[in-house]
Amino acid sequence: MSAKKIFFTTGPSALFYTVEEHLRTALRKQIPSISHRSKAFSQIYQHTEEQLKQLAGLPQDYRLFFTSSATEVWERMLQSAVVSDTLHLVNGAFSKRFFQVAQKLQYQAISVEVPPGNVVSMEGLPTEVMPELIGVTHNETSTGAQQPVKDLEILRTKYPESLITVDAVSSFPVIDLPFYQIDALYFSVQKCFGLPAGLGGWLVNDRFIEKSKQLAPTGNTSYHGVDSFLEKHGKYQTPSTPNVLAIYLLSRVLEDMLEKGLERIRMESKYKSAILYHLLESKQTIAPFVKDTKWRSETVIVSETMDQTNNIIEKLNQKGLVVGSGYGGFKDQHIRIANFPTHSKEQVEMLVDLLDAMVD
Amino acid sequence: MSAKKIFFTTGPSALFYTVEEHLRTALRKQIPSISHRSKAFSQIYQHTEEQLKQLAGLPQDYRLFFTSSATEVWERMLQSAVVSDTLHLVNGAFSKRFFQVAQKLQYQAISVEVPPGNVVSMEGLPTEVMPELIGVTHNETSTGAQQPVKDLEILRTKYPESLITVDAVSSFPVIDLPFYQIDALYFSVQKCFGLPAGLGGWLVNDRFIEKSKQLAPTGNTSYHGVDSFLEKHGKYQTPSTPNVLAIYLLSRVLEDMLEKGLERIRMESKYKSAILYHLLESKQTIAPFVKDTKWRSETVIVSETMDQTNNIIEKLNQKGLVVGSGYGGFKDQHIRIANFPTHSKEQVEMLVDLLDAMVD
Repeated sequence: MSAKKIFFTTGPSALFYTVEEHLRTALRKQIPSISHRSKAFSQIYQHTEEQLKQLAGLPQDYRLFFTSSATEVWERMLQSAVVSDTLHLVNGAFSKRFFQVAQKLQYQAISVEVPPGNVVSMEGLPTEVMPELIGVTHNETSTGAQQPVKDLEILRTKYPESLITVDAVSSFPVIDLPFYQIDALYFSVQKCFGLPAGLGGWLVNDRFIEKSKQLAPTGNTSYHGVDSFLEKHGKYQTPSTPNVLAIYLLSRVLEDMLEKGLERIRMESKYKSAILYHLLESKQTIAPFVKDTKWRSETVIVSETMDQTNNIIEKLNQKGLVVGSGYGGFKDQHIRIANFPTHSKEQVEMLVDLLDAMVD
Repeated sequence: MSAKKIFFTTGPSALFYTVEEHLRTALRKQIPSISHRSKAFSQIYQHTEEQLKQLAGLPQDYRLFFTSSATEVWERMLQSAVVSDTLHLVNGAFSKRFFQVAQKLQYQAISVEVPPGNVVSMEGLPTEVMPELIGVTHNETSTGAQQPVKDLEILRTKYPESLITVDAVSSFPVIDLPFYQIDALYFSVQKCFGLPAGLGGWLVNDRFIEKSKQLAPTGNTSYHGVDSFLEKHGKYQTPSTPNVLAIYLLSRVLEDMLEKGLERIRMESKYKSAILYHLLESKQTIAPFVKDTKWRSETVIVSETMDQTNNIIEKLNQKGLVVGSGYGGFKDQHIRIANFPTHSKEQVEMLVDLLDAMVD
């Protein structure tokens, strides 16, 4: 039996270090066999939502809905809350895909696009429109570019009537966001929470729900529309049989994060990110892909490799460390490294040392 | 620590008896950390599809797509393959819900409805229509009524132009169906496969795919439409990050079922079902809810209880056995008992003995 590898891939990634223990507990408690209409499940759901609010300091009017993936959230947000027009800040594959979903679903979608590795500046946004919904990707998992937090506050000022929706798939809850200026926020459990894939989290506030109610009945026609979610949320249930096991695991990882403290998680994250970027900047043949330091993601670190991608991945793999290749067209030009809460300082230091010895 | 209970609930139910071991193997192999774009995942997906075809004797043109639930399949089937009209055979809560989904999504949906505990007779179907899609629920989990297998063949003869879609959520693969007469079939892994909830299986044939292609681009607008699934299926990937762990577990349970042999599983199923119905028929105060023996489900056994539901559930619970309450309006009037492959003959015999001693 070979030793386990340390996954620094950007999601699915390494499991949170307590997940195996929680899985054993789940089996002992027979969590996979409990009914999703039982009180036991409702308590898990409610506990998960409450802990998430407590951990990240979320507004009390946020509701947590469970989808199958963040990809699903794009569709459900549009179907639930938009009649005609949306605005998308596009700076990579995932922000672009949300824009394309809106186009495919026949919405009048506008995009403001900048090259990968950049972020859309607030000054470059159109002033003559007031879109129903704005899609901004806080952390572009494809490029490692991160929208500055203050931009999200500026968005609210510029577009006071619009619903501000934030893709925080690979940054929540590590990066502190201005949640009171955000109407919908979504995340994937296989990123910062270190869980197996197969569950998306979708947070919506009262404003989002109000807009959604105005659309019904022509809008929310899906079983996974805001109205269906909201109706079941009243008793902490879901419109269809959910991934009960993953929700249970999320509730347990949230307990662990609360016990450790988000402040400590955030401080460690900054340290790990700093030594990774410092290494990349100190080398001759690799360098951070995102040039502007203000835009560099703390949780997804992307490096140019001068065609050394396969070589680096293979050499690290021999040492038991797994990093990701570049996304899409950057497959052979980049490596991508996740810096999630489960990655310990020691693990990241080891990665830094190995990379340092490995490349010029 | 209390002893584990035996779940006879109709899904989520007892885990298949090998699942805990497979979960340990999955953790050892770090399955939750592998990328859904990796060759390792594609191999798992392909292996799962091939084994499923082999186990159940499915047509070679069937493709297996993964959704989050069977509920999702209703929406995706309509969006992918229907322009205007559908026909629904309604005999319980789940068949009715598919009809309601079609109505909500603005399709011209016709239903032929019979009271719970019955099945729609082939003679009672309208002859003047040729709906684009027909929805038939092979096994009504809410009532324990099962559509006779030969009816599915008759449907094809009566409606040669229609897509025949079969809800086999709680009967596949235990009951042998005329798969060559079925264009789409869907199932839930938390029923007969004994897996944790959070994954739906959707099988479509060439005919379904052809109809779906005629609709594009106005039809298949979702990321989970047949066209998106099909495109990714070409390399055994999925349109969004799937529940990789559940797919792996399904592949392993399929291996186990192949080794045991479906014939043996089916023979055991018949035996267990026979002793359960025999017990119900022998008692004074409880009785099978489905009166016509031809319509009685082999996998979901529903009993009338003359208001003893809570009493029976509580008493069995004290003995470590968990059975389900009635569905919806039958909550306090019925008990529902799953007879899935993971339930051993000995477990069902114990349940029969306890029920026999417990009720008059």
